[in-house]
Amino acid sequence: MQTTAAVRGLSCTACGESADPGVERCPDCGAVLVVDYDADAVESAADCHPFPPEATVSIDEGATPLVAVPDLAAELGVESVAVKDEGRNPTGSLADRGFALAVAAAVERGADRVGTPSTGNGAQSAAAYAARADIESKGFVPSRCPFLNKAMVNVHGGDMHVVEGRYADAVEAFAESDEAFASVAPGHPFRIAGATGLALELLADREWAAPDTVVHPAGHGETVVGLQRGFALAVDAGLADAVPRIYAAQPDACAPIAAAAADGAAEPVPVDHPDTIVGPLEVPDPAAGTAAIDAIDATDGDGVAVPDKEILQAAVDGCELGPEIGATGGTAVAGVRALADRDAFASDDEVVLVNPVAGSKEADLLRSHLMSLGM
Amino acid sequence: MQTTAAVRGLSCTACGESADPGVERCPDCGAVLVVDYDADAVESAADCHPFPPEATVSIDEGATPLVAVPDLAAELGVESVAVKDEGRNPTGSLADRGFALAVAAAVERGADRVGTPSTGNGAQSAAAYAARADIESKGFVPSRCPFLNKAMVNVHGGDMHVVEGRYADAVEAFAESDEAFASVAPGHPFRIAGATGLALELLADREWAAPDTVVHPAGHGETVVGLQRGFALAVDAGLADAVPRIYAAQPDACAPIAAAAADGAAEPVPVDHPDTIVGPLEVPDPAAGTAAIDAIDATDGDGVAVPDKEILQAAVDGCELGPEIGATGGTAVAGVRALADRDAFASDDEVVLVNPVAGSKEADLLRSHLMSLGM
Ligand SMILES: [Zn+2]
Ligand SMILES: [Zn+2]
Repeated sequence: MQTTAAVRGLSCTACGESADPGVERCPDCGAVLVVDYDADAVESAADCHPFPPEATVSIDEGATPLVAVPDLAAELGVESVAVKDEGRNPTGSLADRGFALAVAAAVERGADRVGTPSTGNGAQSAAAYAARADIESKGFVPSRCPFLNKAMVNVHGGDMHVVEGRYADAVEAFAESDEAFASVAPGHPFRIAGATGLALELLADREWAAPDTVVHPAGHGETVVGLQRGFALAVDAGLADAVPRIYAAQPDACAPIAAAAADGAAEPVPVDHPDTIVGPLEVPDPAAGTAAIDAIDATDGDGVAVPDKEILQAAVDGCELGPEIGATGGTAVAGVRALADRDAFASDDEVVLVNPVAGSKEADLLRSHLMSLGM
Repeated sequence: MQTTAAVRGLSCTACGESADPGVERCPDCGAVLVVDYDADAVESAADCHPFPPEATVSIDEGATPLVAVPDLAAELGVESVAVKDEGRNPTGSLADRGFALAVAAAVERGADRVGTPSTGNGAQSAAAYAARADIESKGFVPSRCPFLNKAMVNVHGGDMHVVEGRYADAVEAFAESDEAFASVAPGHPFRIAGATGLALELLADREWAAPDTVVHPAGHGETVVGLQRGFALAVDAGLADAVPRIYAAQPDACAPIAAAAADGAAEPVPVDHPDTIVGPLEVPDPAAGTAAIDAIDATDGDGVAVPDKEILQAAVDGCELGPEIGATGGTAVAGVRALADRDAFASDDEVVLVNPVAGSKEADLLRSHLMSLGM
């Protein structure tokens, strides 16, 4: 596979073994792999793009704004709060950074079809990037997947299997499928690499001054892993001088990563009966869960679990103070509030929240919440 | 009103009279006003921002990508096609550029509430920017306004009057309202100035090489006016060497600007029974219609009216080839196809399409179209 000079290969998050960029999981132990960069070859955020121009698949993802939210900083008693608004990606979600790379990797390996299970946004993004690369795609989504995601998969000409039930059922249908496609399922090393790019871009937005803390609404934990890798890479490359603490925020009704991190456990315990209104985060058995807990620990971070009601209220409050966020992004706002309540921050802390999904994509959830309040 | 050194004041698009930046329409003749810039003070796209930092209201609008769509260029037989994806603004529409400025202007004048009639996206944007500025807002929207827009107005804490009927009824309710608010209605000089910023940014994206043609889906004609002003300003400032031809694309069931431009008429004729599925463009009596026709003529451009069915198919095709667009953006794709059919382009032409609204915001329209095709 053709990669840029900055890419050394893949390495295993569990056993450290190296692997070829064409592989999906560690050949030795089956754990999640990450892209290994040569820090000496990384002098800017763009340098961590793994593919040369002729092998790139892009709809101009990334270059999202880091929006200051001073009113939230005042509420929390910290120096600054800013939202990295990943809703401003091509299909309105952070997934685009990962699928741009995972689809390019599949094309490089000669695939003419990619497949993934998804709560919704991932299937939309996979279909968009597959269409852009002129290959086919197949998404496996649960029946609760939002209409908007299903509609846009169709619009992009993507194939879709709507699986009766919840996300775990979609994962099962994906695993049991005998159709031919290259897997771009959660935990894919190049999906994680999308978040490494996010970390470097976030630092570049701040002229390489690392924030003290990043709070991210975690599903599979891919972004948590990629962020930590990116921050550490920037330090190794001499671009930044510190790695921020990473906090994984999750709905308390489905918080395998946050609960394990808070308990000091090495691995997430799969959630038997997940039931959160935050569909994109209803991931009971996260693909990159163990690697995410390691990443959180490496940054001296933590997990934070918050109730759906607080999440929805935080989303609405966030929309009044800063950029539009939905229930998914509201999980970061609710999380940072809970962390402030337990004195996790110093008054001079600089805090970045990641908003993974455009507020407009989750307008129905926010409206229902207002309705429940009689508004 | 405090403005940057680049702003000379306002001038009337009809009689040329100067006006104070606090005025909404020409005091002499009632026509639409535009912001007049001092070309000598404009050395970059950022220089045409009319307000100094302390008077700016921003959620980091703009800085949207210009996405190359080579497959569409091949289909049309032109040198290049790129989509300026304005769906990647804070609330998912081009309206954000205008409301950022119009709300800032209202705050500068001491307003604590703004009001506008809107087909939907404008009300959402007005509510978002008013919330960001910590003032109130009131949107007047027709009952056919999409749920998503109504929901997000509520989420931003905006007040809303849902007027039974169509857009013209919302305009009437707005005009007859005796509530106190500063008007940020269509045709507002600072809403038009938002599109002037778009023009300069688009040129900067291309390193100041003007494209041959820009195709814009027109509603009120504000963006057409602002684009022409911006391109002319860039030429006056010595930044660019040509003004592109501007084509206004509209659904044929509501094409007052496109029809007048195509007929060589000086003014649009209001449409009695507008009926297009493209809600944001169902504007039967455009606020900046006459000024838009003048702007089109000044660039040697034209109007192009296209049927809803072609618009929806063009939107779906556009999503397969380039960035996500909805029915509104599909109007530009259908328009450029119609123009190519009538040999409007040379084989070395470089064409830019404006996508005013995020595809995800109009997923339902695209899905219905696929349904009608039995997909
Ligand atoms: Zn291993
Ligand atoms: Zn006048």
